[in-house]
Amino acid sequence: MKDAPNRPLADLPFTLTALRTAYQDGVTARAVMTECLARLADVNDPGIFIHTPDEATLLAAAEALGPFDPALPLWGMPFAVKDNIDVAGMPTTAACPAYAYEPSEDAFVVARLRAAGAIPLGKTNLDQFATGLVGVRTPFGAPKNALDPEIVPGGSSGGSGVIVGHGIVPFSLGTDTAGSGRVPAALNGIIGLKPTLGALSATGVVPACRTLDTISIFAQNVADAHAVYGVAAAYDTADAYSRPMPSGPLPTPLPAPRITIPDAASIQFFGDCVQKAAFESSVAALKGAGAVVTEVDFTPFYDVAQMLYEGAWVAERHSVIDHLMDTDPEAVLPVTRAIVGKAETLSATDAFRGFYKLADLKRACAPILDACDMLCVPTIPTFYTVADLEADPVTPNSNLGTYTNFVNLLDLAAIAVKTGPRSDGRPGSVTLIGPAGSDGRLAAEAQRIEALASGTPAPTPTPQPGAGEIALAVCGAHMSGLPLNGQLTSRGGRFLAATTTAPEYSFYALPGGPPDRPGLIRQTQGGSAIEVEVWAMPIESIGSLLAIIPAPLGLGQVRLGDGSSVPGFLCEAVATEGATDISSLGGWRAFLASKDVSLAQ
Amino acid sequence: MKDAPNRPLADLPFTLTALRTAYQDGVTARAVMTECLARLADVNDPGIFIHTPDEATLLAAAEALGPFDPALPLWGMPFAVKDNIDVAGMPTTAACPAYAYEPSEDAFVVARLRAAGAIPLGKTNLDQFATGLVGVRTPFGAPKNALDPEIVPGGSSGGSGVIVGHGIVPFSLGTDTAGSGRVPAALNGIIGLKPTLGALSATGVVPACRTLDTISIFAQNVADAHAVYGVAAAYDTADAYSRPMPSGPLPTPLPAPRITIPDAASIQFFGDCVQKAAFESSVAALKGAGAVVTEVDFTPFYDVAQMLYEGAWVAERHSVIDHLMDTDPEAVLPVTRAIVGKAETLSATDAFRGFYKLADLKRACAPILDACDMLCVPTIPTFYTVADLEADPVTPNSNLGTYTNFVNLLDLAAIAVKTGPRSDGRPGSVTLIGPAGSDGRLAAEAQRIEALASGTPAPTPTPQPGAGEIALAVCGAHMSGLPLNGQLTSRGGRFLAATTTAPEYSFYALPGGPPDRPGLIRQTQGGSAIEVEVWAMPIESIGSLLAIIPAPLGLGQVRLGDGSSVPGFLCEAVATEGATDISSLGGWRAFLASKDVSLAQ
Repeated sequence: MKDAPNRPLADLPFTLTALRTAYQDGVTARAVMTECLARLADVNDPGIFIHTPDEATLLAAAEALGPFDPALPLWGMPFAVKDNIDVAGMPTTAACPAYAYEPSEDAFVVARLRAAGAIPLGKTNLDQFATGLVGVRTPFGAPKNALDPEIVPGGSSGGSGVIVGHGIVPFSLGTDTAGSGRVPAALNGIIGLKPTLGALSATGVVPACRTLDTISIFAQNVADAHAVYGVAAAYDTADAYSRPMPSGPLPTPLPAPRITIPDAASIQFFGDCVQKAAFESSVAALKGAGAVVTEVDFTPFYDVAQMLYEGAWVAERHSVIDHLMDTDPEAVLPVTRAIVGKAETLSATDAFRGFYKLADLKRACAPILDACDMLCVPTIPTFYTVADLEADPVTPNSNLGTYTNFVNLLDLAAIAVKTGPRSDGRPGSVTLIGPAGSDGRLAAEAQRIEALASGTPAPTPTPQPGAGEIALAVCGAHMSGLPLNGQLTSRGGRFLAATTTAPEYSFYALPGGPPDRPGLIRQTQGGSAIEVEVWAMPIESIGSLLAIIPAPLGLGQVRLGDGSSVPGFLCEAVATEGATDISSLGGWRAFLASKDVSLAQ
Repeated sequence: MKDAPNRPLADLPFTLTALRTAYQDGVTARAVMTECLARLADVNDPGIFIHTPDEATLLAAAEALGPFDPALPLWGMPFAVKDNIDVAGMPTTAACPAYAYEPSEDAFVVARLRAAGAIPLGKTNLDQFATGLVGVRTPFGAPKNALDPEIVPGGSSGGSGVIVGHGIVPFSLGTDTAGSGRVPAALNGIIGLKPTLGALSATGVVPACRTLDTISIFAQNVADAHAVYGVAAAYDTADAYSRPMPSGPLPTPLPAPRITIPDAASIQFFGDCVQKAAFESSVAALKGAGAVVTEVDFTPFYDVAQMLYEGAWVAERHSVIDHLMDTDPEAVLPVTRAIVGKAETLSATDAFRGFYKLADLKRACAPILDACDMLCVPTIPTFYTVADLEADPVTPNSNLGTYTNFVNLLDLAAIAVKTGPRSDGRPGSVTLIGPAGSDGRLAAEAQRIEALASGTPAPTPTPQPGAGEIALAVCGAHMSGLPLNGQLTSRGGRFLAATTTAPEYSFYALPGGPPDRPGLIRQTQGGSAIEVEVWAMPIESIGSLLAIIPAPLGLGQVRLGDGSSVPGFLCEAVATEGATDISSLGGWRAFLASKDVSLAQ
């Protein structure tokens, strides 16, 4: 391919948006596949793939898509698949030739991506049996880091991280148990989306630790990663650990997200001052954008992280390959054998003692997680070179998992987002971590970090309630910053927009309080436009809100200035007795200001 | 005590209601304790208690309560505590003298009961380390079944079941891992409430299988068991497996509960035709009372049950006593040692394989559970005598767990309820089983079974919304039988009561429709009492209801005739324009009737 005289797509960034635009403009899937293969040939790293179909097969697959179909969200998108995930017609090896088998069916997630129009390009290299965070524990020859071949590629999803780092494909699939979907993202300067456990079916995936595994997504940007997640996520009755998860478009970023970071005494960089400075710079940017940042002692999370390899879970890895280790031990790499072999000394009693300890540690972490919207950590504490790993194959691997190992043990979601280069040119990356099911919320905040890093403004989605939400117009003490706003935020409400009612209302300050309460009453004729905020509330939360709304207030339909109606606060007309008509002020904040003035006088 | 000349309370049933009435009438706690000890002496079964304080101490504890305090829901109630639950000042042995220790504090649940006024009478005998369902695996001499000394007392909570069976105390505490809170209830003709895992804190309880254990409650009737549950249940941050659970008064029984039972091919009675007939009679009574009964192949539940002793969970028992078994094996009963010793051959890898298998089995059970409100099973498949157990200490024990062993593995709640005597005079019992958190729902249905069995009408609880519900007053087309009633029932709403508003409202027929809609508007002065229905709605459903309520209607607070306020339908005052004042008709049904009349004319 290097000799191809024409490379009309050579400058096209391989993102979903750019490729889709090209397809809409008439570019063919064959042309994109041709360019994809040309880029792969340019990179010339035989360590990326364990298996790829030949060029003719891939071009035929592209042509088989037929004409562009805008109904398919991933039409014509080439993607790479970590070689512990089945793709029909390609061998699955988990980087262990003796383990290899030929699956007759795609993994559940691969099938969904293929049905959406995406084209699997091949099976990528990995730390054998997904055991490692470095990417060099493979008998197939390690891939090279996309940015600096001296640095480790990261693992275990090494090939999938490197190929996206090179811009050869818009996205790839990895898996993540200890951090294998995040560490390679940090090392190759890309996005690593680590879904909530169970969101992406494990059917057709070689397990590492089956109770802690998930397929993960590498992409060039947050929007692409979230879009692939949206296609891939679906409940699978055949996977006993599959869970139904909320999905949908990215929510609006929180105006003031509560973000918790490790405090100065507990944050770990293993002496890497450049990494420390890069993280501090990212935190400063978050604060500048409105985040409320809190520092905590991170010890409880490190204690959880320790359990991943020192606790019982290594027995899950053992359950996958114990037969192989018994019958053909040389088929397993020495480092992998040493790690997994530890399970042979662990009893079921040890396993339960581990679960009890984890349950106690979860209790120690819970108040920290409950007190914030998300954690923010460096994705990796520092960088290691291939030479470092040759000198010591274990310690650098352990250190790379400092900020990743605890996440699946605590059933959290995470996304690693690039923050632009560090002062020495190496890629910067932070990871946002939130509760199970917070994948969308995390991606929305990650997108803001991405925008801050690139200096471009974050896209502002049209403010609409999402799936499972209902709009709620509030006109008084429930508005942002006012005393009852917590009744909305504590129920998961999020600010959508500030606007006004149609010019049809009277507005009253009701007697009683504190807090002062407003009465919004529609008039038969005439009336004023009154300032309101529209919030998106989880639809399940309205009942508990109604339960604490005292008479004469209630919930009904409020007509807005644009002619639409949304649910919102109304007031019984009987309440006007003894109330003050403040319609002329046009809103509650003006009323509060007028009160302050009168108090000051 | 047998020689006491006077037994003024000899005929008083020791239920919470009867005792509380006695206390209100001036009976002293000392007098009740005296009668309690007299009954214990009458029974003369030294196998019931492992430890009891002396009479003087117990009488002093009763006197220390002071005068009757109606604010304490369990004031003056003597109760017994299984000897694997700590009571300060009494040794905890778990029926193993070598394991004994002297706790300085009450278990969390005992402390709550004591704070509510209850008096611990002593520590009851059990199958050693709660390992067994028979009640004879104890070095302290087994208690005798309360109804027939030839039958096993049941276990592992044997002493706690027997003492309630005798009517010596109104309630007792057991624990339940495999069925230890249900099997003794069936064998002694009482109620056995097996709470959702985590609802009752395990702080101060000797674990059996820590991930599958719960304290359980024996009582004379369902209402008493549920009342004790209400006092005992509270979130405990010190117990890593504690979970917050809904609580509150018993919900109204479902009008037509969907109840699933084992089908004829899979139901097991081990040849006991009398038990079969008793169960069929209970099912017929349920159908007669409106239940919709479905039969299913019960194999998936039996498969789960098999895992309790054949899977990895025996290692949890091992983790409690492995040190004792290593250092002093003779301290453990041979049968217990044989069961728990199996763990010594189980690896951590075996444990995880067991979890994977259970996860798959859960998937097989899920559709059955999702398709019904609850399961109904015989609590025990048949009866065994003490002689049976002497001949074979294992098989009868296994068989007794047929309908109990799977329940905690599937994270379900259960209640064993007496159904009156079988044709041979032995006690009948069925168990209702529902999802985690359904404790109240199960108790409500159990109360109906109890009433059917006793031939008395079920008590009609005050109509109140239950946990997770909110009252909603409706005054128009949402009422029973009217066009929009489906908006309530399709959201899981249930009728609570028909009543009227306070005499403060005007009532309008709004223009537009169909359907015709009413407007209920509170007046500054005067007004009418308007007929309303109060429904209990799942609190999560209110948002989706609000979303389809058109202006000028809304939801606010409606004042009822009894002076209380409940959420309900209101109307914007602006809507009176063009509307017909129908206040004088007193309600929507009268308005509809008047329309029919005018149409007929």
